[in-house]
Amino acid sequence: MRNEAPAPHTDSLGQVIRVARGDAPADLLITGGQLVNVASGEVYGANVAIVGDTIAAIGPDYRDGLNVIDAAGRFVLPGLIDAHMHLESSLLTPSEFARTVLPHGTTAIVIDPHEIANVLGLSGIRYILESSRDIPLSLFVMASSCVPATDMETAGATLGEKEIRELLGWERVIGLAEMMNVPAVLGGAPLAMGMLAAARERGMPVDGHAPGLSGPDVVAYAAAGIRSDHECTTAAEGLEKLRLGMYLMIREGSAAKNMEALLPVVTDGNYRRCLLVSDDTHPHDLVENGHIDHALRKAVRLGADPVRAVQMVTINAAEAFGRKDLGAVLPGYKADVVLVDDLKDFAVDTVVRHGRPVVLGGRLCVDIPRRQDPSVYKSICTGPVSAASFRMPLEGRRARVIGLTEDQLVTRSLVETVKVQGGCAVSDPKRDILKLAVVERHHASGNVGLGLVKGFGLKRGAMGSSVAHDSHNLVVVGTNDDDMAACVAALTEMGGGFAVVVDGRVEARLALPVAGLMSEEPAEEVAARDRELREVAARLGVVPKAPFITLSFLALPVIPELKLTDRGLVDVTRFRLTDLAA
Amino acid sequence: MRNEAPAPHTDSLGQVIRVARGDAPADLLITGGQLVNVASGEVYGANVAIVGDTIAAIGPDYRDGLNVIDAAGRFVLPGLIDAHMHLESSLLTPSEFARTVLPHGTTAIVIDPHEIANVLGLSGIRYILESSRDIPLSLFVMASSCVPATDMETAGATLGEKEIRELLGWERVIGLAEMMNVPAVLGGAPLAMGMLAAARERGMPVDGHAPGLSGPDVVAYAAAGIRSDHECTTAAEGLEKLRLGMYLMIREGSAAKNMEALLPVVTDGNYRRCLLVSDDTHPHDLVENGHIDHALRKAVRLGADPVRAVQMVTINAAEAFGRKDLGAVLPGYKADVVLVDDLKDFAVDTVVRHGRPVVLGGRLCVDIPRRQDPSVYKSICTGPVSAASFRMPLEGRRARVIGLTEDQLVTRSLVETVKVQGGCAVSDPKRDILKLAVVERHHASGNVGLGLVKGFGLKRGAMGSSVAHDSHNLVVVGTNDDDMAACVAALTEMGGGFAVVVDGRVEARLALPVAGLMSEEPAEEVAARDRELREVAARLGVVPKAPFITLSFLALPVIPELKLTDRGLVDVTRFRLTDLAA
Repeated sequence: MRNEAPAPHTDSLGQVIRVARGDAPADLLITGGQLVNVASGEVYGANVAIVGDTIAAIGPDYRDGLNVIDAAGRFVLPGLIDAHMHLESSLLTPSEFARTVLPHGTTAIVIDPHEIANVLGLSGIRYILESSRDIPLSLFVMASSCVPATDMETAGATLGEKEIRELLGWERVIGLAEMMNVPAVLGGAPLAMGMLAAARERGMPVDGHAPGLSGPDVVAYAAAGIRSDHECTTAAEGLEKLRLGMYLMIREGSAAKNMEALLPVVTDGNYRRCLLVSDDTHPHDLVENGHIDHALRKAVRLGADPVRAVQMVTINAAEAFGRKDLGAVLPGYKADVVLVDDLKDFAVDTVVRHGRPVVLGGRLCVDIPRRQDPSVYKSICTGPVSAASFRMPLEGRRARVIGLTEDQLVTRSLVETVKVQGGCAVSDPKRDILKLAVVERHHASGNVGLGLVKGFGLKRGAMGSSVAHDSHNLVVVGTNDDDMAACVAALTEMGGGFAVVVDGRVEARLALPVAGLMSEEPAEEVAARDRELREVAARLGVVPKAPFITLSFLALPVIPELKLTDRGLVDVTRFRLTDLAA
Repeated sequence: MRNEAPAPHTDSLGQVIRVARGDAPADLLITGGQLVNVASGEVYGANVAIVGDTIAAIGPDYRDGLNVIDAAGRFVLPGLIDAHMHLESSLLTPSEFARTVLPHGTTAIVIDPHEIANVLGLSGIRYILESSRDIPLSLFVMASSCVPATDMETAGATLGEKEIRELLGWERVIGLAEMMNVPAVLGGAPLAMGMLAAARERGMPVDGHAPGLSGPDVVAYAAAGIRSDHECTTAAEGLEKLRLGMYLMIREGSAAKNMEALLPVVTDGNYRRCLLVSDDTHPHDLVENGHIDHALRKAVRLGADPVRAVQMVTINAAEAFGRKDLGAVLPGYKADVVLVDDLKDFAVDTVVRHGRPVVLGGRLCVDIPRRQDPSVYKSICTGPVSAASFRMPLEGRRARVIGLTEDQLVTRSLVETVKVQGGCAVSDPKRDILKLAVVERHHASGNVGLGLVKGFGLKRGAMGSSVAHDSHNLVVVGTNDDDMAACVAALTEMGGGFAVVVDGRVEARLALPVAGLMSEEPAEEVAARDRELREVAARLGVVPKAPFITLSFLALPVIPELKLTDRGLVDVTRFRLTDLAA
């Protein structure tokens, strides 16, 4: 915390004590509100006296403040904490993210920066930390444990045990991020064991990621010291993991929505180990629906006790990560305070972060300088790419085809009779079998992985993205090779982003120059561009509602069944590269 | 934890994972028991598979173990944790204490060694840590914050900010002990602020000690970062402190018994911040009633939910002190497991500590070597003492007299007309006004504080102790100066302890050679000696039921109203030295 925004006034303990004893006025007094006390589990009337960045006192008798906020008729909550998320999914930089979520009551986030780490390695994580140094949002980092995700793809960087040990020593790095490589953990792989040991030696928490894991395997995963999971989708899975001592992170993000399934698991006996997290929220969701306040609202709408729901996004999250100074409106805690109109809709009126009002009347009231950092631009570095790069020689006409499944990241591995011209497979928009390419873009290796995809629906042109989990090479789908090449050129020229190209012309684009993953523009602008891209894609026949997200996951070789990397097609079920010809 | 007893087998994470996956037999399997799962708040049938010092797995399917303990018909609990206690009150060394409490299910204790610290300073704390290094009980130390307790007495050592900072860096030192000097905290005294800063910089917890503190003062005390209190005596006080974010340590010790008053405070919304602690337990209580299991039993008898009561002496304590590897029977946790017959009487059958069975069939089954350490003997170093040392010149006949109050540590400040011979006040057994002396015993300064006490009841001889809170000088009460001098000589000869002398002859004694505070003998022996001393004292007319404890608190100048130190009488209400003549 030492490197965060300095408090506006003195924060010496002596002054905190004087104010608490009633011997000096508070720097900031919040009066007349109903305090949600997450330590005692109660709601009652109390004023809040703040000195510098610290809460000095709570109670009815504090009435003297240099500045006063009237909270009459409102409820006083701790600042909300999202305990597991990926900043990159918002497409926003830390400062723009802060600007977007502060009016929704978020004052602290715990992120796994593994997207930017796959592109830029430690420098990418350093960029995130540097660029969030002075924003009025506490940003904590979990050290990304799976960079790259597999050895069947080319990433921009590798984080080994040495890098993880270095990372764990950095300020605001508070643990080891989700151990997605479940087989490595269960197999006792030296790299995984080394990373776990590094976290254990520092007494730091380790997040999990183990969708569907159950029985002895999930017991072993917990025994390895992994103490959370945000991938549960059923009550039985949630209860099984809770019983093993894992924090149950109930996820409610843009894509994955698990709250209905998991909320019934929460009881008097276990609620302190339950959190609400977002994991991934896309820009339009942030703009339209909010952030973790959205999860809070939904939990209460689904019947959760409001105080308990607040505990799940404040004190529980702070405790899970050993932050004894956050997550509560209590004396001695950091003064992160949110005033809401009620405990049903949780409409945010005021947000105080580390003692400073940052949202008043529901609107941001501080200047958060937009930060531009050219050092993280120009991350796109492909080998020479032309239409010829996408030639797909095929013997015979039977080929493996990636089959999209509606609203899911899982694909099917199809075998189809495909269109062949001059000994090469070509796109066949009529039958909706299109060429898919993953172009290596970190080291100019010239790698181009080629495959076919069914169900995308694109009828003309090509579309592509530099967001392609987890290695973030360029992924392009197209009806013809020329537009695919033009799309790669457009992405490269922007330094990364999303693009739709028809007949050589860029129809829509969103530049993501920060590592090819994030924009430096405001959320509203990013959301508008994103909406335009989806609209253009839909006009071109595209079926998936969030086509760039669908596209980005076609390159992730840890989700079954058939995926494509810059090295070629991956049979995820067998976890190995495979041929186009079937 | 690194320096504790080595695990009997390999504890490599790889083997833990193999056993959890069912690919290898457990080193130790506990089968057929009903598991009290403190994470999920449930009780259900589950086996426990242990590898080395670690729990590898819980679940019904683990059936393969190199060693097996049958827990059929029993309940499986985490090892019990006493989160706040003073070892010295047991009069036992760490190894003897472990031998005594392990059969009661205690596997971890958090101690404030401030008695021995007052005598020997850092060396005393080092002795506690060294002598507990290899015992099968996790002993954690809170750095003693108030050595000496006041500047109106002579202690053996002083712990300033420098010493506290050093201590906080030692292994198994996990926080700052009870900040008893409430005025120093509230006044922002530099020493108190420095100690608090030292703990804060390391993210370490700080215990409180603030009997009766309320209103703005207790708010300020909490705001200073003090996060627990074990001195609450009423429900209102307990709730007030809980609401301020302080862990409520519900005390049930030999002298102070607060459970009836405080248990009603515990709710679904706050129970995770409630603990049961002993603070001080005397040897006969340990032998006859047990340790923290006694508190557990009593809580359930008073109506607490058994699972919740177990949580209060296991996971809650571990969380309060940031120990993520203790307090639960969960995969990856240290294998501290207790089998009890039921969740009512909690009769302990088996205790496994760090994977090793230490209690079977209710009896200790391991050898805990008795440790003898002459380096902490011979701490008694008085100046020359003779009968003449106790001469109390008094002008006139009116004197201040310490008035005992039944069953309380608080005394009254009386003014009496006393017996005077040759210009000196003398003991007057008929009116039960006796001489009381505190003889400095650390630096041979020759300081002898003299006063009078009413209500002790001694009719013949003298009795004395080297346990005299908190500076632990020699405190002696007597009917005549010769026996008082003989008593001091007897205490000195033993290297400290308790003694009763009549007509120059030692009628009963208990040697406490370790810093004049602790015996190296077994608890049963110590308890028997202690009983004999009390019986002898009672035969001599002594009124207090635990006369040596009463005596030891007559020298503690932080409890009102009138006390005696080696510097003289202390008017505690005014916090200053005062005269005998009134």
